Amino acid sequence: MNAGRKSCDAAGPIGVFDSGLGGLTVVRQILSLLPGEDIVYLGDSARVPYGTKSPATVCKFALQDAGFLLRFDPKMIVVACNTASAVAMDVLRENLPVEVIGVVEPAAAAAVRLADGGEIGVIGTEGTVNSKAYPRAIHAIDGARTVLAAAAPLLVPIVEEGRKQDDPIVLAVLTDYLHELQRRRPAVLILGCTHYPLLVRAISKLMGPHTRLLDPGLAVAEHVRARLNETGLLSRQAQGSLRCFTTDNPERFAHLARRFLGREVAGVELLGADELDRAECGGQA
Amino acid sequence: MNAGRKSCDAAGPIGVFDSGLGGLTVVRQILSLLPGEDIVYLGDSARVPYGTKSPATVCKFALQDAGFLLRFDPKMIVVACNTASAVAMDVLRENLPVEVIGVVEPAAAAAVRLADGGEIGVIGTEGTVNSKAYPRAIHAIDGARTVLAAAAPLLVPIVEEGRKQDDPIVLAVLTDYLHELQRRRPAVLILGCTHYPLLVRAISKLMGPHTRLLDPGLAVAEHVRARLNETGLLSRQAQGSLRCFTTDNPERFAHLARRFLGREVAGVELLGADELDRAECGGQA
Repeated sequence: MNAGRKSCDAAGPIGVFDSGLGGLTVVRQILSLLPGEDIVYLGDSARVPYGTKSPATVCKFALQDAGFLLRFDPKMIVVACNTASAVAMDVLRENLPVEVIGVVEPAAAAAVRLADGGEIGVIGTEGTVNSKAYPRAIHAIDGARTVLAAAAPLLVPIVEEGRKQDDPIVLAVLTDYLHELQRRRPAVLILGCTHYPLLVRAISKLMGPHTRLLDPGLAVAEHVRARLNETGLLSRQAQGSLRCFTTDNPERFAHLARRFLGREVAGVELLGADELDRAECGGQA
Repeated sequence: MNAGRKSCDAAGPIGVFDSGLGGLTVVRQILSLLPGEDIVYLGDSARVPYGTKSPATVCKFALQDAGFLLRFDPKMIVVACNTASAVAMDVLRENLPVEVIGVVEPAAAAAVRLADGGEIGVIGTEGTVNSKAYPRAIHAIDGARTVLAAAAPLLVPIVEEGRKQDDPIVLAVLTDYLHELQRRRPAVLILGCTHYPLLVRAISKLMGPHTRLLDPGLAVAEHVRARLNETGLLSRQAQGSLRCFTTDNPERFAHLARRFLGREVAGVELLGADELDRAECGGQA
């Protein structure tokens, strides 16, 4: 299955990629739990979104994104994008010489723990929901668990447009998508796209106190810490660094990043789309 | 300025490209006016949308899209995407050996004629509105004309999601974007994105009878006909063909295309993103 691991160094960075900015909500959780880690982040803003695209195209883009991150000799690669985690984990694991962690498996495990036997809801992109990756991951732990999934395609552009959580349009769109889930009142609702944590207050209000919301970012950060601990690769620094690359418009990235990361991002670097095309990791593995 | 024209043949196809499916609303108008023309269409669905991306990235993608179409020895290339027309016309004209027609100039000219001295409104993507291409094109004809522009980023994903025109969310989003334009009641409102003609009834209802809506597709089709007539390149066939390429997911393309084109599209062909990367026309011109 695996491309053959290379030996990794605790001083190496964690590589994180996403279709755009959203993965910074995952980085935020990793930084909060593991402040000593160096992180290299790639947001593929030139080709965002991945959530409406075919599995074949998402796999291709994910291999290129990961291939670029290999240049930094990472000790681990985190797939922050739910859509890429839902459709590309097998191909990434086959082709990458380092451990790859996606968001779906840690989030599914955390949801099963948190739901305490109750039903689990998931909202995500078309790609994530159509892939059935969340039900599959949950059923791998508990085959009898009821999983309710709903695609919510407008939420990503709504968040990127910068609408507030009490904007009537945000509430109308959420009500439309969550209608059936509200009726079913699952014990846990997985926010299965990196943008959704920015709507957590509005979603929580609509779902009511019976349903606990799960941000996969936190589950991923905990899994990253556990794996680095098990493999002896935790950083020994007190304070790590964050280096961000984007395939489009570093100014827009820096401007929007604050909302996803909770702090400023300095010196966002532009990566030519050409460079990414050449980076596909199949050849390097 | 120009890359040096090659001699063209009336039997050659018209090449049309767009960031995705939307450009089929332009193709629909061309086919209706010029049923004898062969058309080769490229929708860059793997990298859609262009409307939120930087001018540099849109120029690069547009050059690649056009470069691919050159393989078919087209007599003309139509840039059906408003965003690409707004930011990439100069670079396309510099690099392509055939005539290039965008949507902005013909639509601006038609709007000035239709407005009869009145104010002109434009709705479009972030990229189109930020470029100020419509006001610039209108002011090139009439420097004193008032132009009111509003970006409407959610309309593309709303149309692609397949929502009906009387969907409360569609009406709420339109009301939000059109609020200021409703107050100003321009004589003409340009539907400055290929997806918007699919919302024409809802937009018309909100804008009221004072404002005439302008679909750039029709203005472009008329301009294409006039230019082919002037250059002696009108097709002599009775019935032309339509060949469609997409960079992602031909099934999704064929499924959604019906709504944009008004009829079925058979045999949509998948174009690998790699192939497009190699197609950039700078080298070929």
